[in-house]
Amino acid sequence: MKVFLSRPLFDTQLLASRLEDAGITLITTNSDDICPIATLLEQANGADGLITHTEDNLTAEVINQLPASIKIIANYGIGFSNIDIEAATKKGIQVTNTPTDEAFHATAEATVALLVSIARQVPALNAERRAMKTDPAPSFKRPTAVSIRKKVTGIVGLGRIGSRVAKMMYHGFDNSIIYYDLYQNASLEQELNAEKVPLKELMETADFICVNMPLSEQTYDLVSADMLAFVKPDAVLINTARAGLVNEDALIERLNKGLLHGAGLDVYSDKVNAITADNVALTSHFANFEKEAYTAMTNLVIDNLIGQLTHKKPVTPVNSPLGR
Amino acid sequence: MKVFLSRPLFDTQLLASRLEDAGITLITTNSDDICPIATLLEQANGADGLITHTEDNLTAEVINQLPASIKIIANYGIGFSNIDIEAATKKGIQVTNTPTDEAFHATAEATVALLVSIARQVPALNAERRAMKTDPAPSFKRPTAVSIRKKVTGIVGLGRIGSRVAKMMYHGFDNSIIYYDLYQNASLEQELNAEKVPLKELMETADFICVNMPLSEQTYDLVSADMLAFVKPDAVLINTARAGLVNEDALIERLNKGLLHGAGLDVYSDKVNAITADNVALTSHFANFEKEAYTAMTNLVIDNLIGQLTHKKPVTPVNSPLGR
Repeated sequence: MKVFLSRPLFDTQLLASRLEDAGITLITTNSDDICPIATLLEQANGADGLITHTEDNLTAEVINQLPASIKIIANYGIGFSNIDIEAATKKGIQVTNTPTDEAFHATAEATVALLVSIARQVPALNAERRAMKTDPAPSFKRPTAVSIRKKVTGIVGLGRIGSRVAKMMYHGFDNSIIYYDLYQNASLEQELNAEKVPLKELMETADFICVNMPLSEQTYDLVSADMLAFVKPDAVLINTARAGLVNEDALIERLNKGLLHGAGLDVYSDKVNAITADNVALTSHFANFEKEAYTAMTNLVIDNLIGQLTHKKPVTPVNSPLGR
Repeated sequence: MKVFLSRPLFDTQLLASRLEDAGITLITTNSDDICPIATLLEQANGADGLITHTEDNLTAEVINQLPASIKIIANYGIGFSNIDIEAATKKGIQVTNTPTDEAFHATAEATVALLVSIARQVPALNAERRAMKTDPAPSFKRPTAVSIRKKVTGIVGLGRIGSRVAKMMYHGFDNSIIYYDLYQNASLEQELNAEKVPLKELMETADFICVNMPLSEQTYDLVSADMLAFVKPDAVLINTARAGLVNEDALIERLNKGLLHGAGLDVYSDKVNAITADNVALTSHFANFEKEAYTAMTNLVIDNLIGQLTHKKPVTPVNSPLGR
């Protein structure tokens, strides 16, 4: 058996060796770029499966051109909006994703890492020193940290990621936890003494605001210009979810006017180039790009492939293909 | 009564107003620079006390020129090596410092903030995005984080700062704690399941190494080139204590050769300009420069001044002046 990986990744070696042990040969490219669709279709010939990334755009048109030998598309990542699931289902192709605990942990840790970096002015201090090439003279006009301990963390979206952020801030930094969500999380309320509050109250009260909500029509622009106007001027805002959840224009305006201590953003548009404030970290959608999370995803991709190709039982299917 | 503050600081207003309430007038300069000794001596005339910073170098010669009216030198900071204590004692001048809990907390938080920033590659990712002005294309050659959860934190010096770092890493991130110190900390061993180990073992085992030791003749170059050679290539090293504790040449060589995941340094010499590795944060000795810590120090400076000037009882004296 043979599967094609659309782009080499962090642990291609692990992927190749575990598949080899199961009698499956891994084929991949030498390029670090997104795989051209023509290459993908070419390599699919004679292959039993494809391993794809969320950047590979598998439209109905592409899927309909795949050879009948393709039984599975194992997609890297929790999301699979890059694949036309209906077309795959009709063509009898199993699609799988990688909803690993490690990926949620990784994104939660990225959130906390950005939060404490910004609270302590790490990006601003580092930029200052790099520009000066020597230690700045002592001055009380230099960037000043806010403490992390015993503050109020407000979680916008207490799901699988937000609840992990809440636990780290509560257990690690003695923070009080408030949250905004559609649903009440009674067990976490008990464990962390957490309190569900209206979004306006969260904005007014929280020292650290972490946006961990899925993006939908309902949540688009949830942290709107009006909501941002309630935020305290020494608060920290972190967004590791989706750019559309936060009004970027209003956020950038507050940052540039000094009406926020700082912001840690993993998701944004190129509007962020207009940010002039120093205490901002931009990390380009890498919240779950972590060795341990990647290895866990790789192992799940392998388990899905072996499961499907040897006994038609993938671990984490996202569709029920017809005729299989 | 009158006291002279050698350089305005973060909360000069608080200082002025609380002293005023106690009948003490605060005089200060308009300059953000280190106070020239000539200015300090001039302003000391007719003053009852001085409020100094650790950058003010009060040698025996300077102290001997101070007028008899000066009864107290209230120094900002835990350290007071900038003041010739013997000369002050002989001249009957009370010296005080500011050993506040908040300052230890602040430095411990700075240590953890650097640790998680470096683990998650925040400085490298931020630098990449700032240079590109747009989001980098997905690539598995980009900076990859290591996870924070369930790792081994090794604390070099489990004192008032190191023990707080240990607690945050244990409770917040489920880390195992090992430590190197001259003394055993039985209560912390019990609370955190911490284990005292030889320095070599700590270097070989720890994923995160935090240097929190005081600098002395005995601890100079403690984390030597030989010791650094034992460190794992994906480990993170944090130094928020003193530059002399770590062999800078060996550290820089390891960083530049990719033999460390990264380093967070609050203390260093200009040798760090030779660092070419991306995942390094330099924060210029600002570990305890934090709003809450500064306010606590300011309040202690005030309490020391009022204590000394009204009933000769400072809160945190560092000497027993003769003839007072």
